[in-house]
Amino acid sequence: MRGFTYLSKVLHSHSSYSKLLVLCSVSTGGLLVYAESNVESGKQVVEQNQPESKKKRVVVLGTGWGGTSFLKDVDISSYDVQVVSPRNYFAFTPLLPSVTCGTVEARSIVEPVRNIIKKRSGEIQFWEAECLKIDPENRTVSCRSGINDNLAGQNDFSLQYDYLVVAVGAQVNTFNTPGVMEHCHFLKEVEDAQRIRRTVIDCFEKSVIPGLSEEERRTNLHFVIVGGGPTGVEFAAELHDYVYEDLVKIYPSVKDFVKITVIQSGDHILNTFDERISSFAEQKFQRDGIEVSTGCRVTSVSDHFINMKVKSTGKHVEVPYGMVVWSTGVGTRPFVKDFMEQVGQEKRRILATDEWLRVKGCSNVYALGDCASIDQRKVMEDISAIFKAADKDDSGTLSIEEFRDVLEDIIIRYPQVDLYLKNKHLLEAKDLFRDSEGNEREEVDIEGFKLALSHVDSQMKSLPATAQVLLPLFVFHPCFSFHLCCLDSPKVLPHTCRFYIKTALLFVDMFEESEQHSFSLSILL
Amino acid sequence: MRGFTYLSKVLHSHSSYSKLLVLCSVSTGGLLVYAESNVESGKQVVEQNQPESKKKRVVVLGTGWGGTSFLKDVDISSYDVQVVSPRNYFAFTPLLPSVTCGTVEARSIVEPVRNIIKKRSGEIQFWEAECLKIDPENRTVSCRSGINDNLAGQNDFSLQYDYLVVAVGAQVNTFNTPGVMEHCHFLKEVEDAQRIRRTVIDCFEKSVIPGLSEEERRTNLHFVIVGGGPTGVEFAAELHDYVYEDLVKIYPSVKDFVKITVIQSGDHILNTFDERISSFAEQKFQRDGIEVSTGCRVTSVSDHFINMKVKSTGKHVEVPYGMVVWSTGVGTRPFVKDFMEQVGQEKRRILATDEWLRVKGCSNVYALGDCASIDQRKVMEDISAIFKAADKDDSGTLSIEEFRDVLEDIIIRYPQVDLYLKNKHLLEAKDLFRDSEGNEREEVDIEGFKLALSHVDSQMKSLPATAQVLLPLFVFHPCFSFHLCCLDSPKVLPHTCRFYIKTALLFVDMFEESEQHSFSLSILL
Repeated sequence: MRGFTYLSKVLHSHSSYSKLLVLCSVSTGGLLVYAESNVESGKQVVEQNQPESKKKRVVVLGTGWGGTSFLKDVDISSYDVQVVSPRNYFAFTPLLPSVTCGTVEARSIVEPVRNIIKKRSGEIQFWEAECLKIDPENRTVSCRSGINDNLAGQNDFSLQYDYLVVAVGAQVNTFNTPGVMEHCHFLKEVEDAQRIRRTVIDCFEKSVIPGLSEEERRTNLHFVIVGGGPTGVEFAAELHDYVYEDLVKIYPSVKDFVKITVIQSGDHILNTFDERISSFAEQKFQRDGIEVSTGCRVTSVSDHFINMKVKSTGKHVEVPYGMVVWSTGVGTRPFVKDFMEQVGQEKRRILATDEWLRVKGCSNVYALGDCASIDQRKVMEDISAIFKAADKDDSGTLSIEEFRDVLEDIIIRYPQVDLYLKNKHLLEAKDLFRDSEGNEREEVDIEGFKLALSHVDSQMKSLPATAQVLLPLFVFHPCFSFHLCCLDSPKVLPHTCRFYIKTALLFVDMFEESEQHSFSLSILL
Repeated sequence: MRGFTYLSKVLHSHSSYSKLLVLCSVSTGGLLVYAESNVESGKQVVEQNQPESKKKRVVVLGTGWGGTSFLKDVDISSYDVQVVSPRNYFAFTPLLPSVTCGTVEARSIVEPVRNIIKKRSGEIQFWEAECLKIDPENRTVSCRSGINDNLAGQNDFSLQYDYLVVAVGAQVNTFNTPGVMEHCHFLKEVEDAQRIRRTVIDCFEKSVIPGLSEEERRTNLHFVIVGGGPTGVEFAAELHDYVYEDLVKIYPSVKDFVKITVIQSGDHILNTFDERISSFAEQKFQRDGIEVSTGCRVTSVSDHFINMKVKSTGKHVEVPYGMVVWSTGVGTRPFVKDFMEQVGQEKRRILATDEWLRVKGCSNVYALGDCASIDQRKVMEDISAIFKAADKDDSGTLSIEEFRDVLEDIIIRYPQVDLYLKNKHLLEAKDLFRDSEGNEREEVDIEGFKLALSHVDSQMKSLPATAQVLLPLFVFHPCFSFHLCCLDSPKVLPHTCRFYIKTALLFVDMFEESEQHSFSLSILL
């Protein structure tokens, strides 16, 4: 009952949630509990454990989408909140590609963390530093300030925590390709975008100076994007507009030498999307003169060339370039990797949490955003407990009414059920109860119940712990958001969000071309 | 007559200036000439010398105030204009101190050179490169692009010129003080201002991290400005407002540790100004808690300390700091120094030009802005020629009418005359003719004329070739601006302009305090 007790504690100050269906999992299996949470007694427990003078300390790592949303909602009257991040601002990452081309000024897409903190009337402390190590044994994080060594005082410090929220995002993934770190640009941080912008102009300035051969001018104006995912595709499209709408007017003498190439290892760009979107993007790029080299794997990048292997022919090709933007996906930060080893997750690619965003293998550590992924429990693992909890009259069978009463809760706890219902166009609980011939049934026993839900787990995917995924939970279950102390605002989140925006934009393009202007982005933003 | 012939050539296309009083100097002395410039014949000369197919090439070095103003006015139908500058933008330097504090965004104070060029409908070529050497013998400048070495093609190139305009400004002057280049900030370029802004925030971020002693926090928040001139004073004032209006709210825990110090080697800050302004600024700083250490000379700067000598006691003092901004004045760029040696100006501190901004000691090279200074001819050097030209009836005496006729031209040619008249409150030509008892005279001979003008040269100062100085010339003598192909707009110019703005601001402060709100800055901006 640990989960429930903890939940009660967290709930103590919010009487509006005092009556509430609580769904929580314990490590031995699933459990479905109806609780009449007694606010007063809950408060006492909290007060006994943590007197007002010494609040429990919540340390938050990161000020991206996850960390910032958490800060906006955390109950600062109950916790001593301390935030550590190497950036003292929050950045609206979906607009980064626009910063590369000056469509949006960097200043417009950042918000200082201290401003966000100031809006909360309590005290949240912030330190501009990087986390170097999490020590779950001693509940400590080691941090280092990255500020100029000239300044007085040491850069290293440690923080004790009672609860730790890991929201540090991911880092660029070079797949250990030689030369990438040294010669490529990335598009993760605001500084990256600003650097790209300067480099694009540098390429043009260099290509017009006297005495260069046509070949050299062409090389300097060859912009290569490695990775045909949403980030790469979005940047290529922005760059194309920037070049052909603005730059060719400013540098008319070299306008015919510009070339934009997208290198993609798969057979299509945007291959995680619906095929129609992918082929639409490819056709659009073809019309715009953006070259798409699919089926090519970059093997190394030198100061002047990209070396790649063409999968179809097996040949190695050297491509001269002016600028390379590397956007092949994200990887895990080293200190998160180290933490994963400590909590027995060394074999995983990404930090695993349960559905409550609790890191598996240790206590009091939560993780969300690009650095983590939710391991969703299967319905079938907990089927007996679910049946037992739903069968209120202990009859050994579940009536349609009994099932209907708990279905909503099941959907919150196991989002795959909702997905299954939607995909199968099942509108009601009774539709799940139909037998194999499609006849309605009034009651089912445990075997029938298992049969009814036997396919729902097939809808499960590995879920990144980002807002898109969590959104249904937040919308339907305020307590969930509260339990996590985070993410009330159903807004877009990191990497994944670009997918949605890009998809939306492509849809807009498609719709515009078919003259259906009514499509609105707002639902996605 | 070289000067006059050249002027005629330049004038060929502007019939509005065809009848014109031309005042020009030849190297052997002064000469006052009334010319009926024949536009048609002038044009023929030009056409013979430089057929339309091969325009003469004007190379402009620099895109600051001087270079940019020149570009706005140069007659591109007659010249092949090529511009070389390491910055591809013009920066409104007076607002740099505001960029350090975020009052103004860097983007707002720059204008791309290529935008400025685009507005001229002809063809001006621009190259982002630094000038390394001027070769006046072969009329060549050697340049180097400072862009990323990774890009294809060589960075060095040379340009031939027929006329060269040197408007490269000055560089920071460290007076060879050890450690200044390594550890100090400057305030010359936009990047400098952005770097200062980041460093101020870094100092605050570092000073709040856990584990620092109070002493260390104080050190990190000690902002030192070396140089109590207008730049230093303006920055100190901006920083003070930034810290006490904004930053102390964001970093309340360290607000009592902040200290701003201005180190000045002289006895007063702003010591080139009127004493009232200087003492007003000192009193204001005292009220604001900005420490002013006058009579202190910085001997070296290390990574943690400023070492300075207190003149009054002769003692050496070590001052710990968080950030140092060095603003002790400007020096000559190395390639300008080298050029000065080639044209026999090796003993001078700054490039000397005549009143037409022609560099002394070589032909077809002009210089203006912070990199040059005008050597104004004395009236007494040319007094006989002036008398002869004014004495139209060759009577050997000058009547008051004859003198009145040429006085305006004299004032244009010798600005010190105007200054003298104003300072002595002399309103009319006849006031100059009064004898020692103050009686009016109708006629003077050459000796009387010499006596009348004997004191005007005392008003001469070494004039920097900036717009403030040139302004009267432009206003009264459009041909002058045209002759220089530049600077028609009577707007503020580089270093000097800060003086004016700062003075204006201080006056505004003074006026505000005495509740005279009518003072307007606009006349100065």
